[in-house]
Amino acid sequence: MKNRLNPNRKITVQVSEDSELELRLKHIMVPPGHKISLQKDFDPGFTADFKDKKDARKKLEQNIAELAEYQDILYAQDTYALLLVFQAMDAAGKDGTIKHVMSGINPQGCQVYSFKSPSAEELDHGYLWRTNKVMPERGRIGIFNRSYYEEVLVLRVHPELLDHQKIPSEARKDIWEHRYQQINNMEQYLVENGIVVLKFFLNVSKEEQKNRFLERIDRPEKNWKFSTADAKERAFWDDYQQAYEDCLNHTSTEWAPWFVVPADHKWFTRLTVSEIIVRTLKRLNLRYPEVSAARHQELLKIRRLLESDT
Amino acid sequence: MKNRLNPNRKITVQVSEDSELELRLKHIMVPPGHKISLQKDFDPGFTADFKDKKDARKKLEQNIAELAEYQDILYAQDTYALLLVFQAMDAAGKDGTIKHVMSGINPQGCQVYSFKSPSAEELDHGYLWRTNKVMPERGRIGIFNRSYYEEVLVLRVHPELLDHQKIPSEARKDIWEHRYQQINNMEQYLVENGIVVLKFFLNVSKEEQKNRFLERIDRPEKNWKFSTADAKERAFWDDYQQAYEDCLNHTSTEWAPWFVVPADHKWFTRLTVSEIIVRTLKRLNLRYPEVSAARHQELLKIRRLLESDT
Repeated sequence: MKNRLNPNRKITVQVSEDSELELRLKHIMVPPGHKISLQKDFDPGFTADFKDKKDARKKLEQNIAELAEYQDILYAQDTYALLLVFQAMDAAGKDGTIKHVMSGINPQGCQVYSFKSPSAEELDHGYLWRTNKVMPERGRIGIFNRSYYEEVLVLRVHPELLDHQKIPSEARKDIWEHRYQQINNMEQYLVENGIVVLKFFLNVSKEEQKNRFLERIDRPEKNWKFSTADAKERAFWDDYQQAYEDCLNHTSTEWAPWFVVPADHKWFTRLTVSEIIVRTLKRLNLRYPEVSAARHQELLKIRRLLESDT
Repeated sequence: MKNRLNPNRKITVQVSEDSELELRLKHIMVPPGHKISLQKDFDPGFTADFKDKKDARKKLEQNIAELAEYQDILYAQDTYALLLVFQAMDAAGKDGTIKHVMSGINPQGCQVYSFKSPSAEELDHGYLWRTNKVMPERGRIGIFNRSYYEEVLVLRVHPELLDHQKIPSEARKDIWEHRYQQINNMEQYLVENGIVVLKFFLNVSKEEQKNRFLERIDRPEKNWKFSTADAKERAFWDDYQQAYEDCLNHTSTEWAPWFVVPADHKWFTRLTVSEIIVRTLKRLNLRYPEVSAARHQELLKIRRLLESDT
């Protein structure tokens, strides 16, 4: 309660840690306006200066605690929202990252949406409709486990799926360029209206994906995670990498950048995602709503009344 | 049923009528990229070559019949949607126009949404959220009785309402320019995805608004239509005209033009709106879904079976 009465309360962060992170982010962020090569510029096995899971644990725990604090202020201030987009090849660790990074926060302020194959009703609308409907409210963190980006990824690899979208044939011309632009515009609208957008591509290697599929088959408690369809999609690996690279090059913007998060080591994926979220919330200069002097006096008066209540 | 089996069926229209209409539209459409003056360039009392209501009746009836036919194909083809946006000063005739122009069509293919003051949930999202949610499905006509344009009209005249939107203070900078751009981008996305957008500003004069308010007070069966709040908004007439003019100048685009429909004569408003809708549907070259030769044979076979069924 004390904090809620103090509008100037802010979380203190050490500057040295910040600049370390900024250095690490150079290996991870897709610079807007520059062309990247997924294979040459990003290493799925990258772990910066961290040796192993144990080495990263303290930092991750600290980030999760900070995240919970920031979310509390985000919710109270009710001005900004945060949209987290997760995209990846299968078994790259989307579900695990969401679970481990976000489990410390108040579920009242957080909504996760997983987007599967679109329904008939969804196909009858523009492709951004189903995600627009569930954009996070102010004060909340919205998480998209897969997103509108599937529309330039799965559909790019399997363009025959466009037939189901029933869009006019003239809309098929330059469709990917158009969709990149439409998505950039939509995200700009969000950001300009206080909905902050962060996009994570969890970058797993083909070899590590194989290991994880094998693990899902070999370990009975992981069997439910294995899908034959996922394994079949592996045949399109190169096409997906190409689709992702083109997508990242066209939709990493100043207002909504893409992060290519190394995903061969789950602990580093989680650490990195938590750091980027905390860094972003920090930069928003979140504050509990200001309490006027008059309201503060009123609260103190109520306090005295409550104290004398036996 | 005969028509449904003929994919090449199209409605025939006389060319001479078309060019007459195009001439009339020059007095009505806001040319994209040009600055217009609402007062100097548009006459609320304009009726073209039509003398009176009786003179226009036949044309209106013909348009309504054509509209119903086109809507049937729009629905069957399930590829395009049509979004009709109606904006106007109070008593300009939005409700009457929607009623009289659209009453001939199948309600299954048409959805009307009236946007009142936003709810708490709506205010907690970006300002385009509540209208995005109810964008028309493919095959349908969606009608917005007021729309997201209120966000650059009412809010422009009463900027104190922005406080309720809880947007970050930095988002208030150049807010109108940003919103025009955001709206243009959003409409471009719609059009590029097969959702055709038509925007009607029903242009009533201040004098005629007064007459209609007086009528609503004097005629008991119209009393329910009169709102004291509406009459009070009349004090902001000039501010609204300025807000509309600026909005029209920034958001009449090649892909989603504005029509300033003369509204001092209700019959001409209805005629004009019906003409613009029919003209637009006509240009889409709508067709019933093509039936393959094999399917056609199958249908004929079923026909014979049905005939022999006693």
